[in-house]
Amino acid sequence: MRRTLATKVLPAVGAGLLVALAVPGFAAADTLDAYTKGVLPDSVGFNSTWVIVAGMVVMFMQAGFAFLEIGFSRQKNAGTVVAKILTNFSIAAVCWYFVGFALAFGNDAAGIHGLIGGTGFLLHAFGDPAQAFPIMGLSDATVESKFFFQFVFCAVSLAIVWGTTLERIKFGVYVIYAVVFASIIYPIGAHWVFGGGFLQVPVGLWKDLGFVGMQDFAGSTAVHLIGATGAFAALLLLGPRKGKYGADGKPRAIPGHNMPLFGLGVLILWLGWFGFNPGSTLNVQDGRFTEIVVVTNLAAACGVLGALMMSYLKTKTLDIGMAGNGAIGALVAITAPSGYVELWAAIPIGLIAGIIVPLGIYAIDRRLDDPVGALTAHGLCGIWGTLSCGLFSSPRLASYNTVGDPAGGLLYSGSLSQLAAQAVGFAVAFAFVFAMSFATFYAIKKVYGLRVTEEEEDAGLDISEHGMYGYPEQFIPPAELIGYGGGAVATVPPAPVPSLATKESPA
Amino acid sequence: MRRTLATKVLPAVGAGLLVALAVPGFAAADTLDAYTKGVLPDSVGFNSTWVIVAGMVVMFMQAGFAFLEIGFSRQKNAGTVVAKILTNFSIAAVCWYFVGFALAFGNDAAGIHGLIGGTGFLLHAFGDPAQAFPIMGLSDATVESKFFFQFVFCAVSLAIVWGTTLERIKFGVYVIYAVVFASIIYPIGAHWVFGGGFLQVPVGLWKDLGFVGMQDFAGSTAVHLIGATGAFAALLLLGPRKGKYGADGKPRAIPGHNMPLFGLGVLILWLGWFGFNPGSTLNVQDGRFTEIVVVTNLAAACGVLGALMMSYLKTKTLDIGMAGNGAIGALVAITAPSGYVELWAAIPIGLIAGIIVPLGIYAIDRRLDDPVGALTAHGLCGIWGTLSCGLFSSPRLASYNTVGDPAGGLLYSGSLSQLAAQAVGFAVAFAFVFAMSFATFYAIKKVYGLRVTEEEEDAGLDISEHGMYGYPEQFIPPAELIGYGGGAVATVPPAPVPSLATKESPA
Amino acid sequence: MRRTLATKVLPAVGAGLLVALAVPGFAAADTLDAYTKGVLPDSVGFNSTWVIVAGMVVMFMQAGFAFLEIGFSRQKNAGTVVAKILTNFSIAAVCWYFVGFALAFGNDAAGIHGLIGGTGFLLHAFGDPAQAFPIMGLSDATVESKFFFQFVFCAVSLAIVWGTTLERIKFGVYVIYAVVFASIIYPIGAHWVFGGGFLQVPVGLWKDLGFVGMQDFAGSTAVHLIGATGAFAALLLLGPRKGKYGADGKPRAIPGHNMPLFGLGVLILWLGWFGFNPGSTLNVQDGRFTEIVVVTNLAAACGVLGALMMSYLKTKTLDIGMAGNGAIGALVAITAPSGYVELWAAIPIGLIAGIIVPLGIYAIDRRLDDPVGALTAHGLCGIWGTLSCGLFSSPRLASYNTVGDPAGGLLYSGSLSQLAAQAVGFAVAFAFVFAMSFATFYAIKKVYGLRVTEEEEDAGLDISEHGMYGYPEQFIPPAELIGYGGGAVATVPPAPVPSLATKESPA
Repeated sequence: MRRTLATKVLPAVGAGLLVALAVPGFAAADTLDAYTKGVLPDSVGFNSTWVIVAGMVVMFMQAGFAFLEIGFSRQKNAGTVVAKILTNFSIAAVCWYFVGFALAFGNDAAGIHGLIGGTGFLLHAFGDPAQAFPIMGLSDATVESKFFFQFVFCAVSLAIVWGTTLERIKFGVYVIYAVVFASIIYPIGAHWVFGGGFLQVPVGLWKDLGFVGMQDFAGSTAVHLIGATGAFAALLLLGPRKGKYGADGKPRAIPGHNMPLFGLGVLILWLGWFGFNPGSTLNVQDGRFTEIVVVTNLAAACGVLGALMMSYLKTKTLDIGMAGNGAIGALVAITAPSGYVELWAAIPIGLIAGIIVPLGIYAIDRRLDDPVGALTAHGLCGIWGTLSCGLFSSPRLASYNTVGDPAGGLLYSGSLSQLAAQAVGFAVAFAFVFAMSFATFYAIKKVYGLRVTEEEEDAGLDISEHGMYGYPEQFIPPAELIGYGGGAVATVPPAPVPSLATKESPA
Repeated sequence: MRRTLATKVLPAVGAGLLVALAVPGFAAADTLDAYTKGVLPDSVGFNSTWVIVAGMVVMFMQAGFAFLEIGFSRQKNAGTVVAKILTNFSIAAVCWYFVGFALAFGNDAAGIHGLIGGTGFLLHAFGDPAQAFPIMGLSDATVESKFFFQFVFCAVSLAIVWGTTLERIKFGVYVIYAVVFASIIYPIGAHWVFGGGFLQVPVGLWKDLGFVGMQDFAGSTAVHLIGATGAFAALLLLGPRKGKYGADGKPRAIPGHNMPLFGLGVLILWLGWFGFNPGSTLNVQDGRFTEIVVVTNLAAACGVLGALMMSYLKTKTLDIGMAGNGAIGALVAITAPSGYVELWAAIPIGLIAGIIVPLGIYAIDRRLDDPVGALTAHGLCGIWGTLSCGLFSSPRLASYNTVGDPAGGLLYSGSLSQLAAQAVGFAVAFAFVFAMSFATFYAIKKVYGLRVTEEEEDAGLDISEHGMYGYPEQFIPPAELIGYGGGAVATVPPAPVPSLATKESPA
Repeated sequence: MRRTLATKVLPAVGAGLLVALAVPGFAAADTLDAYTKGVLPDSVGFNSTWVIVAGMVVMFMQAGFAFLEIGFSRQKNAGTVVAKILTNFSIAAVCWYFVGFALAFGNDAAGIHGLIGGTGFLLHAFGDPAQAFPIMGLSDATVESKFFFQFVFCAVSLAIVWGTTLERIKFGVYVIYAVVFASIIYPIGAHWVFGGGFLQVPVGLWKDLGFVGMQDFAGSTAVHLIGATGAFAALLLLGPRKGKYGADGKPRAIPGHNMPLFGLGVLILWLGWFGFNPGSTLNVQDGRFTEIVVVTNLAAACGVLGALMMSYLKTKTLDIGMAGNGAIGALVAITAPSGYVELWAAIPIGLIAGIIVPLGIYAIDRRLDDPVGALTAHGLCGIWGTLSCGLFSSPRLASYNTVGDPAGGLLYSGSLSQLAAQAVGFAVAFAFVFAMSFATFYAIKKVYGLRVTEEEEDAGLDISEHGMYGYPEQFIPPAELIGYGGGAVATVPPAPVPSLATKESPA
């Protein structure tokens, strides 16, 4: 197996943790909040229950992303997704605890209004809860429940980054970028958009320029576009999979190996979105979350139908992958407006997102190799969802979680001010995340490399990165993959690795 | 790929939606209920939380049905299930929003007592909540939470229809029937049985005939039998899979390709039932839902044991599929009585359902090709569950959610009146749904056709309906499938489709 | 198929149930608790909601264990896991209802303080709820919700037993041991550790010896170590899989067939642990459960990182299975202390558990064939977790659910008394469970046999125990499994079984 810098990153992370543990006083660093307060009002109990349950299904979206990616990978690259998702989620959890949450949702650091949070490192001394969560802080759920809920959002955003890079990226890249993303990139971007930062609550120059507060209820921009932007930066530096583009420059389909598992991923994600959007109320007392459940489901349904219709028009086929990505694209799109629109608006928002899906995937596929369609489903649909607030926000709902006295979207107010805030908002978030991510990936590329070797790509990442196949009993060398020849005789072992049948366990 | 009427249905559905959007005033059509009311009593918040969470796991039952069907399909037909479940669920969501919910759970249409609901189209102007949900309206959860909960019930019922039709039905049939089912058939049937209609709350002639109210707590009849009845109608017109019956007329086993994924489906469904039955209280304040959790689980466990015992007696083998179907059959059976019986009654109800499963499956298999056993698990066990209320309903519990002063089941009251109401109730529901479904499928058969061609059936629905395999890398041509020949060399491509290896993406 | 004593056990179980049903008065045996009490305080409603939701995700851990085992099995043994998990869960459910719950969590049997519960058989006459759940009884959730929650714990413990015995155990062993385990072994062990027994609440001799109460918040010992101890007893009598150890006595790797499904199992288990630990508060009113969510997640994350680092140091490879088992080992370890430690302590507890995982797995693998690593993940990590309370328990939290006036762990108190209670506690539990389990398996071995025949092991348990393959279409005879030869032509059928292609359904 390779001994690379990459695989030395994990020990370094661990060493860092152990050092941190050695710091005196660390043991006293966090003060658990809820229990210390003694008996809480009942509403804190049941609001927190909802936030935790919502967070749990959002956490389970990791399985959704894993199986969406596994389904769209060739079977020689299926096992690595499991190691990737566990590693990334774990790194994010540690980074979120140490710094991420504080930067994203802490009270503003002294003197730096609207740019970055500065309290709550290690969940210690979180600060005045009335100041924290300035907008979403309507609730009285425990800080710990919000910490967990916002962590799984960060982990979703990170998971979105990698679908685009499947089947050729080095494992170590996941590790390095995950640290930067969960510690810095996501927290700052999220702070700006829905953590009380300047895009959500205009201050200083931003206020003087006359911007109204950006609306992004559950993160079309803050979670999905940020993830897709990271994916875009990675893809530009990484390049396509071997064989994706022919000598003529035309794209070839590289079918994923398992549509049933792709379907499992989609259904888990759909389920998770009932935590994602309705959970973002952080509160059940006003019943608003139940309305958001209905809005979310209706949009997703229209996304499936829109994507199937449009892909049928383009290809005369009812594409299974498009149906699934239609659901996801629509769910991404409804994420921002779900808190601000009437039920009916879920239909155009979802339907248009569904239509965007095949159009975007086919267009991007001509130049960029995005195996799962994440640039479209999370990127383009994230933009559409963010903008749609500027069209459809209902005045009576817009005030639910927006600063000032919002006039609502264009359809209601005739005003472009919300739409302008949305457009500038996602542009700012995109620019920040793209610059940070491109710089990070560029540095990784120079120092360590982004891609596995051609031989490793041929052999598959499972065997080359992990020394084992995801499906050792039925592995078929990729060189033999011709037409329907799933059953072809394996004559050429894909790489010089020790025979599995005689490989010994380490002593 | 084929260009058929079927694949033109989706665009038509979409066009309809867009037209609807163009109607002036549509934008004002729905009034979100909860938020408009301002701060609600705390109990609304936490009751609604339970209803939403229960609805979420019932929604996830779609994955359960998908993997139960995938597991029981041959691998050439595995991918289409994903497209099917997404399409059906989506169509149902839209239809439920426009008309289904209003017909099923709206207040009675003026002058038509007990036959059909008439308020709440587009969740607008739902009417007096005290009149709505006349029986289940004990709760004070939000209307939106009930809308979602009842929608996922409708979607479960629709999902049940299709297991029986696996591996030979045209995709377009799903689309057409789903519209009719979710707009008309299910809502009317559900209204009669548990939406306040004449079977649940006898009025007019029905009352004069002396019927007591039918008991179907969570839908053994209203959801499961209705779905299975649709399946039965489809099957009569569709016929068996090619090769199912030999020249001698005897059935041959066509093993499903993936028992692990079948197992995943069963466990997801079992989980979902903890939403299905206990969620139907729509309320947590009296603690009743926790008792229903225990009743439900105990019945399912006995179903597994009953099915294993009986199938062992029949075949001297511990059949994996029977174990799973035993759980499902018992869960279907306990669905109706779960609200009305003491804990102990879960044992005979579940055990007998489990025993019914292999007996029913083997008996039906002699004449009708039901690949997943849904006619037994949802049909026969649905009937048994519905009738079991007439035997086991406990007087003190029967009054929980039943009109009048119920005497309880035969074992307690010595009276046959509840049993009679149950028997007539399911017969009425069966007759209505069968007539409507048979007519619908018959019309589809005449105009469009129900079955794929023989060549398409041989090639598999994945490639013939969707232009892609569910497992492109390991596909084995069905003609080569002999004995254990999973590894046979693929020499005969199954159908004249473009080679996947060179297929280009659409530009 | 074989007609063995084993397969006669199920009918016997069924007969027993039917006899029980025939006992007069049985019908009145249970009194549903909650509803009888009429309207309950609101807090009972929402506390019970959390307990039930937590129990639901713990129930879903059955799917987690199933797919962890399926992933680590060869494909000839994948289907049997589904039948096993359904059968075991069902037997446990029935036994728990009749006797298990009463022995584990009933009020102490008269005159036998601290050894065994004695009220609540069939959930009847549970006794004074204030006496029941003497420690965990801080909550006011319904008894039924606690019954369900504790049942799924029992079922998890039972599921842990079997991973170690994969691929060679007779199906009947599951049935027999499940009855003994769920009726006697687990209930008594759980009573001692966290059901109010002498380890948790020292009485009599134990008190005189000066022991403080053992801390095991959610069952590192009571659930995980008990399960792993049963596994250990079974393994000693069962022996390794054929071919596991070469002529030189060195272990050979027998790779599991499906890493993606293994990953699904791990993610489901991780999700389930958010019910497992935080649900053990049985209460949401003090917000403590939200802190336990954060502690649990942080530990799991560190477990993944620790296991990856250590396994990389040992093998220079990022092992997929180790990543998953690292998560599980850390979750097992944090289970006991999760209720008693500050957030920061999750890091060393999880990290050390992660480090234990590869060390334990490689060490055990040299002598004992544990295909899934359960002896390490649930056994060694269970011990570490139990002991860690003695190190890290925070005084202010230790009093949350511990008898007397606990001084906290060594780090806070400088006292070894808690550590001693922990060490003696797990030793007592281990000794009891090992003796009971070894005796049970020994008796089974003598009377019925533990292992399938060599021919059956070669053919695989799916075909030999169930007469069907888990993956009938792609089955590859194990004799042909050489190197990457997943695609090899099948020339030698693995066992003299009837051809699947011509197998007829039973008439």
